[in-house]
Amino acid sequence: MNEREIIEHLRRRFPRAGDDAAVIDDRVITNDMLVEDVDFTRAIPLEFIARKSLAVNLSDLAAMGAHPEWAMVALGIPQWVDARAFIDRIADAASAHHIEIIGGDLSRAEKFVVSITAAGRVSRPLLRSGARRGDRLYVSRPLGASFAGLHLLQNGWSIAANGDVSAPPDVAYAQREFGAAAIRRHVDPEPEVALGIALSSIAEVTSCIDISDGLSTDLHHLCESSQCGAIVERDRIPLFPDLLSNAGPLGIDTAQAVLHGGEEFALLFTSSLRESELSSRLGRPVYGIGRITERDVLLDGKPLEPQGWDHFM
Amino acid sequence: MNEREIIEHLRRRFPRAGDDAAVIDDRVITNDMLVEDVDFTRAIPLEFIARKSLAVNLSDLAAMGAHPEWAMVALGIPQWVDARAFIDRIADAASAHHIEIIGGDLSRAEKFVVSITAAGRVSRPLLRSGARRGDRLYVSRPLGASFAGLHLLQNGWSIAANGDVSAPPDVAYAQREFGAAAIRRHVDPEPEVALGIALSSIAEVTSCIDISDGLSTDLHHLCESSQCGAIVERDRIPLFPDLLSNAGPLGIDTAQAVLHGGEEFALLFTSSLRESELSSRLGRPVYGIGRITERDVLLDGKPLEPQGWDHFM
Repeated sequence: MNEREIIEHLRRRFPRAGDDAAVIDDRVITNDMLVEDVDFTRAIPLEFIARKSLAVNLSDLAAMGAHPEWAMVALGIPQWVDARAFIDRIADAASAHHIEIIGGDLSRAEKFVVSITAAGRVSRPLLRSGARRGDRLYVSRPLGASFAGLHLLQNGWSIAANGDVSAPPDVAYAQREFGAAAIRRHVDPEPEVALGIALSSIAEVTSCIDISDGLSTDLHHLCESSQCGAIVERDRIPLFPDLLSNAGPLGIDTAQAVLHGGEEFALLFTSSLRESELSSRLGRPVYGIGRITERDVLLDGKPLEPQGWDHFM
Repeated sequence: MNEREIIEHLRRRFPRAGDDAAVIDDRVITNDMLVEDVDFTRAIPLEFIARKSLAVNLSDLAAMGAHPEWAMVALGIPQWVDARAFIDRIADAASAHHIEIIGGDLSRAEKFVVSITAAGRVSRPLLRSGARRGDRLYVSRPLGASFAGLHLLQNGWSIAANGDVSAPPDVAYAQREFGAAAIRRHVDPEPEVALGIALSSIAEVTSCIDISDGLSTDLHHLCESSQCGAIVERDRIPLFPDLLSNAGPLGIDTAQAVLHGGEEFALLFTSSLRESELSSRLGRPVYGIGRITERDVLLDGKPLEPQGWDHFM
């Protein structure tokens, strides 16, 4: 049984559980659970586990256009985790994002588990289901770094609590800066909270999702919810700086990284507005990568299969 | 580092995290995480794990006097768990308690983890901090069964998904009915949702907590929050039916079960009203077991130490 089948079953049983977060009155509420050896390993410093566990929830709120309000933190704590230090790091991350930790639960566990529920306030929630034929399709920032960073961490690179990255001795100097940037993006993603709030205020923005499972998979999620298709132009997908020149020497599959890599936490959204108009209203760049169509999800005319992250594979 | 130290640290960092649930406007929000081999074992049928994981959250809402509204369910699912069957059982339990499952998250995990966040609505939340000197101290129902049931499950008894209990062959017929009732109470606790709501509507009810860590430990929690003491009369503590006569033959320590046994999910509360007046207003019995005093938590004049459940021992 894969995640898709279970999630389809979940949606049949719990119809409200379709978007990145559930909408209750003017609040949106979301939950993400990170599990040791599934979502991270002990090699990742606690600082980054704390920040990322909050960031994935904030990204869900961002995808709905919500102002973060509060979070609850449930921890399953094994012996190797300093619970107080972890709580301090969660508190720091919450302060940085102006979200209040209102409570939680603690339990012993063999593997470290961090389950966070977060809520935000929104007047016009962005849904996955609002895309309309003819809308333009956007991503909020260049893609590919999170997959690249994960690949490097699985191949001898490491990151210290202070953010210093170590590469294996045989890595050329030219690749080290890119590698460090990719790893930092992977372990310390920046949720698009401000952008989500801004998109929610623009009536011509019709749908939104965050790229947590990979562009291909999350685009399928969006198209399924909106009962539409999409066509993506590969040349228009923005790439993380220097990805193309460094991917080869570092053994990174660029197509895999950009099209299917998960944990980007960029926003994928649709709007009837042109790129120049939208970027101008937002005061920052966003990247048009294609169009919404009647049916089928295509990349340069060929089917784009959802090959992203499946937590259950 | 024990749970108390970590929780004290949590409260310093997150001042709102003091009661059974956090209060945000007219809503209360709570979270409980259950972990395989810490809070339950594979020997417990999934039906009961599902019901109990929701019940512990509903009991937190009950302790605050809240009407249950919604829950989010995060699951860390190992191979041995049928995720769809578990989701169905959670859905059934939610329907039975009129609480809507609004979403959640799924992850693979080596040990089964169920982390539920639940919210309810309340106009006058019951807090731990409202007990006043001279108040009467109440429990909502007879105690001791949950500890007894856990003891039996750890000593050769078992329960099937349909609720049938099996005892070891050497257990006398006279003990079997009691044992089955105690095990059912342990694996399938009934949260005091209706009572909590009723207590919230009675202005003379001054404080409330649910007995999840044991009477001794939760009474200390209540007294610390209210900056008071308490005196409990042992003879007035109501005992689960037939506990006294069956405890000896079954090897159950009655004092341990009644004074320190956790996971009762009875309510422990204080009021200036007499037992007869309170029971009459509630239309059901509640049990006066002592009084609130200036300082010290005493049982028949001797210190009652908090010897209940510590998830971190």
